[in-house]
Amino acid sequence: MPTLTNRQIVLRRRPHGLVAPEDTELVTAPAPEPGDGEALVRTTYVGIDAAARTWLDDQPGYLPPVGLGEVIRAAGIGEVVQSRCAAYSVGDIVTTLTGFQEYTIVRDDLFTTPVPGPGDQVDQLAVMSIYGPTGATAYFGMTGIGRPQPGETVVVSAAAGATGSVAGQIAKIAGARVVGIAGGPHKCRAVVEDFGFDACIDYRNEDVPAALRQHCPKGVDVYFDNVGGPILDAVLGRLAHKARVVLCGVISSYLTGEHPGPANYVNLLAKTALMQGFNALDEWGRFDEAFAALRGWEEQGLLTHREHIFDGIESCVDALNGLFTGANIGKTLVRLAGS
Amino acid sequence: MPTLTNRQIVLRRRPHGLVAPEDTELVTAPAPEPGDGEALVRTTYVGIDAAARTWLDDQPGYLPPVGLGEVIRAAGIGEVVQSRCAAYSVGDIVTTLTGFQEYTIVRDDLFTTPVPGPGDQVDQLAVMSIYGPTGATAYFGMTGIGRPQPGETVVVSAAAGATGSVAGQIAKIAGARVVGIAGGPHKCRAVVEDFGFDACIDYRNEDVPAALRQHCPKGVDVYFDNVGGPILDAVLGRLAHKARVVLCGVISSYLTGEHPGPANYVNLLAKTALMQGFNALDEWGRFDEAFAALRGWEEQGLLTHREHIFDGIESCVDALNGLFTGANIGKTLVRLAGS
Repeated sequence: MPTLTNRQIVLRRRPHGLVAPEDTELVTAPAPEPGDGEALVRTTYVGIDAAARTWLDDQPGYLPPVGLGEVIRAAGIGEVVQSRCAAYSVGDIVTTLTGFQEYTIVRDDLFTTPVPGPGDQVDQLAVMSIYGPTGATAYFGMTGIGRPQPGETVVVSAAAGATGSVAGQIAKIAGARVVGIAGGPHKCRAVVEDFGFDACIDYRNEDVPAALRQHCPKGVDVYFDNVGGPILDAVLGRLAHKARVVLCGVISSYLTGEHPGPANYVNLLAKTALMQGFNALDEWGRFDEAFAALRGWEEQGLLTHREHIFDGIESCVDALNGLFTGANIGKTLVRLAGS
Repeated sequence: MPTLTNRQIVLRRRPHGLVAPEDTELVTAPAPEPGDGEALVRTTYVGIDAAARTWLDDQPGYLPPVGLGEVIRAAGIGEVVQSRCAAYSVGDIVTTLTGFQEYTIVRDDLFTTPVPGPGDQVDQLAVMSIYGPTGATAYFGMTGIGRPQPGETVVVSAAAGATGSVAGQIAKIAGARVVGIAGGPHKCRAVVEDFGFDACIDYRNEDVPAALRQHCPKGVDVYFDNVGGPILDAVLGRLAHKARVVLCGVISSYLTGEHPGPANYVNLLAKTALMQGFNALDEWGRFDEAFAALRGWEEQGLLTHREHIFDGIESCVDALNGLFTGANIGKTLVRLAGS
């Protein structure tokens, strides 16, 4: 078998703010050969998540920082092309930490999940949007911590994004009134028209506290927060009694590394409310439960997904930067091979 | 029956910071006569809680602000001296919102609880410290939200105070290592020697983040917060995985009305942790359960209480100000009549 070449984007310098051209380098290396208990996966789609930006900083998190010279970490999907691992056969589709590269070695571990069914019949876009870590994050955050009840008011920030769009739809399915927050009229229209939210606040063009008073006259029972910063503070100032605040991300601070403290956290006390962080990986053993519920809803036409797709490994950095500047709706992906 | 006189402290002006002499007035009025379904209670002890200061501001909370000209609200204990209410007999001891006054009318409502047993055998100090709202607050906050496990590290702020001292002892009983935070060597000594905490950080004379690193090398599993402000932020910066932060009070802001936001709230996300406010009144129906548990621990010698007692209604304002400036240890009370 001829040696496969593996194009990779490696980190050369830690970025400040957006990732600059000098911060990364596209390199070509031979694809690694799987050892015993390993398999080789060819990446189909690299998932572009805001969390990936945090891994480029030299800060401890739930995963260690990407080292200088290392491939940039990202969750993706691909096809097993060689296997010396009992868990995977050639042709299987798996989700794993592909990184920004064309080939990656996988093992039978926490980060790698085979997708059931014949590989050529797998809807890889649906897996990246719903039946993978993104969908699981929305599901466990909303159903495990948010627990929306019929008639309650739920607010979701970054509502046009991959996680927010699914989280809000789950709250709608639970019978809640759902208000999104997103940046710009294009995203807000998609949040209401495509994802079925009851309303969407355009934080770039509206006064968020005033809009929250208008759209949430009885207060906010559940807030699914992807952004932190002044928007979190505004929603905390509008909590209803026994509200639940789901901390899923802090996009507003990923470029600056600064987290302004939300002064309205005291409302958690006044309103007997809860604010909780979570990581879907903690619920790894229950992913099948999440995917079964999500699939049922999709089959009933209650849950939809959209993808914003870039082409070619050269696009990975632009796609990542675009999460902070762009007009992406739904899950942002970079296609590396045909699916 | 001769008309009883009722000395009362009423609010004349909303205080800024500590309560100034001009903010209140001591007035004498006839004691009210109970109507149908009411009883008259002679106050034995007024409980002095930091929350009482918040009720003097014109800010909505879980109870409305005290109006100008109204008696200052406070939870206390007293004896039923006249009754036209089936729930209470003359001679009963009850806890209720006595306010800063000698006599108060009570009904069969959420805020009034008869203390079991013959009135002359009731230990009213123990009721104010443990078998009343203060003890219930410590109990439900620590057991319901904190849920300390054997070997975990628990931090309690305002550890020498009424609620903190009981909350910390409950965590010790649960098998946790308990570190207090208090102001000054006098309080810190009491926290360790009288209340049995494993250590106490003197926030006036020590660097709190450094002391937390020293005393909590594996991080903080449970934080029972009475103070907010920079101390809350410091403890949030030291959370362990799956930590629980119990929001019980914000003493640091009661005089200023300003709540600096804790920037380290993002650690709730990084550590999959929870921060929850609560109000013991929400658990009203379970107070008997709390008191039974607390009584069992006291009888086993595992739980102790201390009181800091002022004498005479003229002392009420000084006692309240003393919570923010003084060396009070345990529950602060003002004695109005013999018990």
